[in-house]
Amino acid sequence: MVTRKEDFSKWYLQTIQQADLMDYAPVRGNIIFKPDGYEIWEHIQEEFNRRFKEEGIRNAYFPMLIPESFFNKEKNHIEGFSPELPWVTEAAGEKLEERLALRPTSETMIGDAMSRWIQSYRDLPMEINQWANVFRWEKRTLPFLRTSEFLWQEGHTAHATAEDAIERTMRSLQIYKEVVEGLLAMPVFSGEKTPSERFAGAERTYSIEAMMQDGKAVQAGTSHFMGTKFAEAFDIRYLNTDNEHVYAYTTSFGASTRLIGAMIMAHGDDQGLVLPPRVAPHQVVMIPVGPWQKNPAIMEKIEELHSEFKALGIRVLIDDSDNSPGYKFNEWEMHGVPFRIEVGPRDLKNEQVMVKARDLDEKVAVPFTDIMTYIQEQMDAMQTRLLEKARQMNADQLYTHIETLDELKAHIESKQAAGENPGWVLAGWDGTEETEAQIKEVTGFTTRNIPFEGTVEPKTTCIVSGKPATTTVWLARAY
Amino acid sequence: MVTRKEDFSKWYLQTIQQADLMDYAPVRGNIIFKPDGYEIWEHIQEEFNRRFKEEGIRNAYFPMLIPESFFNKEKNHIEGFSPELPWVTEAAGEKLEERLALRPTSETMIGDAMSRWIQSYRDLPMEINQWANVFRWEKRTLPFLRTSEFLWQEGHTAHATAEDAIERTMRSLQIYKEVVEGLLAMPVFSGEKTPSERFAGAERTYSIEAMMQDGKAVQAGTSHFMGTKFAEAFDIRYLNTDNEHVYAYTTSFGASTRLIGAMIMAHGDDQGLVLPPRVAPHQVVMIPVGPWQKNPAIMEKIEELHSEFKALGIRVLIDDSDNSPGYKFNEWEMHGVPFRIEVGPRDLKNEQVMVKARDLDEKVAVPFTDIMTYIQEQMDAMQTRLLEKARQMNADQLYTHIETLDELKAHIESKQAAGENPGWVLAGWDGTEETEAQIKEVTGFTTRNIPFEGTVEPKTTCIVSGKPATTTVWLARAY
Repeated sequence: MVTRKEDFSKWYLQTIQQADLMDYAPVRGNIIFKPDGYEIWEHIQEEFNRRFKEEGIRNAYFPMLIPESFFNKEKNHIEGFSPELPWVTEAAGEKLEERLALRPTSETMIGDAMSRWIQSYRDLPMEINQWANVFRWEKRTLPFLRTSEFLWQEGHTAHATAEDAIERTMRSLQIYKEVVEGLLAMPVFSGEKTPSERFAGAERTYSIEAMMQDGKAVQAGTSHFMGTKFAEAFDIRYLNTDNEHVYAYTTSFGASTRLIGAMIMAHGDDQGLVLPPRVAPHQVVMIPVGPWQKNPAIMEKIEELHSEFKALGIRVLIDDSDNSPGYKFNEWEMHGVPFRIEVGPRDLKNEQVMVKARDLDEKVAVPFTDIMTYIQEQMDAMQTRLLEKARQMNADQLYTHIETLDELKAHIESKQAAGENPGWVLAGWDGTEETEAQIKEVTGFTTRNIPFEGTVEPKTTCIVSGKPATTTVWLARAY
Repeated sequence: MVTRKEDFSKWYLQTIQQADLMDYAPVRGNIIFKPDGYEIWEHIQEEFNRRFKEEGIRNAYFPMLIPESFFNKEKNHIEGFSPELPWVTEAAGEKLEERLALRPTSETMIGDAMSRWIQSYRDLPMEINQWANVFRWEKRTLPFLRTSEFLWQEGHTAHATAEDAIERTMRSLQIYKEVVEGLLAMPVFSGEKTPSERFAGAERTYSIEAMMQDGKAVQAGTSHFMGTKFAEAFDIRYLNTDNEHVYAYTTSFGASTRLIGAMIMAHGDDQGLVLPPRVAPHQVVMIPVGPWQKNPAIMEKIEELHSEFKALGIRVLIDDSDNSPGYKFNEWEMHGVPFRIEVGPRDLKNEQVMVKARDLDEKVAVPFTDIMTYIQEQMDAMQTRLLEKARQMNADQLYTHIETLDELKAHIESKQAAGENPGWVLAGWDGTEETEAQIKEVTGFTTRNIPFEGTVEPKTTCIVSGKPATTTVWLARAY
């Protein structure tokens, strides 16, 4: 077992396979989501569905194949996506007249539909979400984080005014933050992307960015304000109360299965996966110990507790295989099961179980009578503990004292020499593409996002040009 | 509005559009599932997920793109599916070395994975389900019932013995029957498909078949026993307890969004959609009547009841638009909302509401104090009523007295002359492909399935050849 410190990438690939979350697929850059991996996604879906439906955003489903002519309607959109598109060119033994793209995202398909569905101000806002597979044929792939096919939700909304659309954009970003922090226990940094990092066709893109244990960033969700760009490209107009046909303002927002990979890189340890209880496929594993095969009362007790857990909606399993307890402990730690409960002859006598939380070292004896309440409380406690631990890890890897490109280079070099991560650096920026490109070229750091006003101490000079800074931006290496 | 009697196909297309379930998409044979249409699917998904998970079948996700070489591994499989496959031939600006099919079904992809995942008898049974979009480029398309892209679940299992695999095959078929009858209130006929109608690569295919109001059949779900055919093609072997490497037995089973179309054709009436309460996106619509704008107490009462319904988990909406009550009544009948509740000044005075069930003619006055219980009970009652009504409709269109092809032709002609449906015909069959083909050629009727023993009175002679019948089979026209 390689440790995180020795080789973080290798540790990640080893961890997700040993935890049985995925397998490689026969087509390049694709993975199979095995049941434990997919169930994490199902819990993420449940939470997003609950949140979206609460605000009246309804699910729908649009065709996956998008005619080439649709892409060509929005210039920036096709420029941004065309390098990554797979194309269907033949079907049922015949060559198609027009190539069909496998959707990388559905602004065009949904824009076309909205142009038919929206007639009057009474039809607005129109707020739709889609759960779908999407395709981006990228050169460098990494399981969960960047795969040729991935799963996501994409929200698409249309509004009467720019203000309404911006409000939706910010609200979607806020939902992302709450779900990722609340469910995945992964603290995120909200902010606006720089123009060069905008979604192809957007007027403004906002993101939540999460920090991994190696100090690199993962863009964990994005929310876009399109202005009237897509409305103009697809003729989404409505009759306003003054009886004028005017363009609607649209937004879109997406979060994907890369959240699974990010969560693993944020919480895992050298024993394997560490899963926040709220998304864990198995929250409790029960293991008989001692000479349990000779003492049927042990398995009877385990079965009894198992039924009680199930009745409470707790996802529980029993490992009564022939493997040794030590093997089982290791196995379920690798799988990141939040709580392990051991029951042996002595426990039976003392009317207790031994409980081990995945993220703590000690075992705790808990009386039979208290164990249901204990696990319920400790699930919440562990959820909070993981979030706080990640927050602390983030805080330790944020650097806000760096003022020049030379200082940034020196910072990176000294960290690397010490075998540490260069983390994230808060920098002043003059807002030009040239300085942004230079930062990347010289350091490999890219702009993550521009924190909202009041959340950081603003920088006054650009880290590259020394000119007055127009914005303050997080810089980091990113997945 | 065309009626069912006048033109059933036109009635169907008109109904699904007016009920806002779907829209046509820009790519041939594709549809958009609008929120109300998609929500029906979500309720179907919830029920299948509940049933599958109860028996330990877990969800997973496999890549959509399948290399051409995978298809070629099972001869019958490629022969069956190749005429319908769309192919990706280019991606990211380059021609691919091997064409990739858009999955029509995933036996090959999952067979390949199972060959890696299954090593020992301890790994069996392996039971997996996938929710996915699939593609079959068919010439004749019809919204929901037959589209180029559709949504489905596909279960895939592997077992140690043929008996275990057959048990799973029959159990899956039984789940289909229970879900379709219980949730969609659509009675189905279970049985085995004839060899010519088998899934490409299966040893045996079973189906549930539903009858539409025009007497035509819809295959509503299929369950396949593969024997060791896919195990041999993909080398799915396991070490048995005798330490021998032997082939596993596999099964698969699928049900799709065509269930939505079938349900509509089974229950709809000349006013539009009729939805069973358990799958209806909106179960109750509340409409203020009389001079309600001048009497705020009416909307207050409606809001109060609305909250009570919501607290009970009943899917309720209020129509307080400016349209006339008559317009609204018509609108929500078209949408198939199971219950309409009207509240006007007189109702307020009498402390009651007026309730209209979608499938009944009369309105009923129900006191405020009873309305929650009333709707809960009536939802169950309506669910049962729709199932029984459909059962009766089926019974009226089953013909079991026909013994020869000439009688069948005469039956069809006389029904058509009377403006009636020829329905389904129970026939003796000598089990040869020739007679099966002849039935189709002469009458347009196809074999639907072979009912299980004891469920029908067996026929003794073949309807075509007059030879002894090997099986008794349902014949019908089908979607």
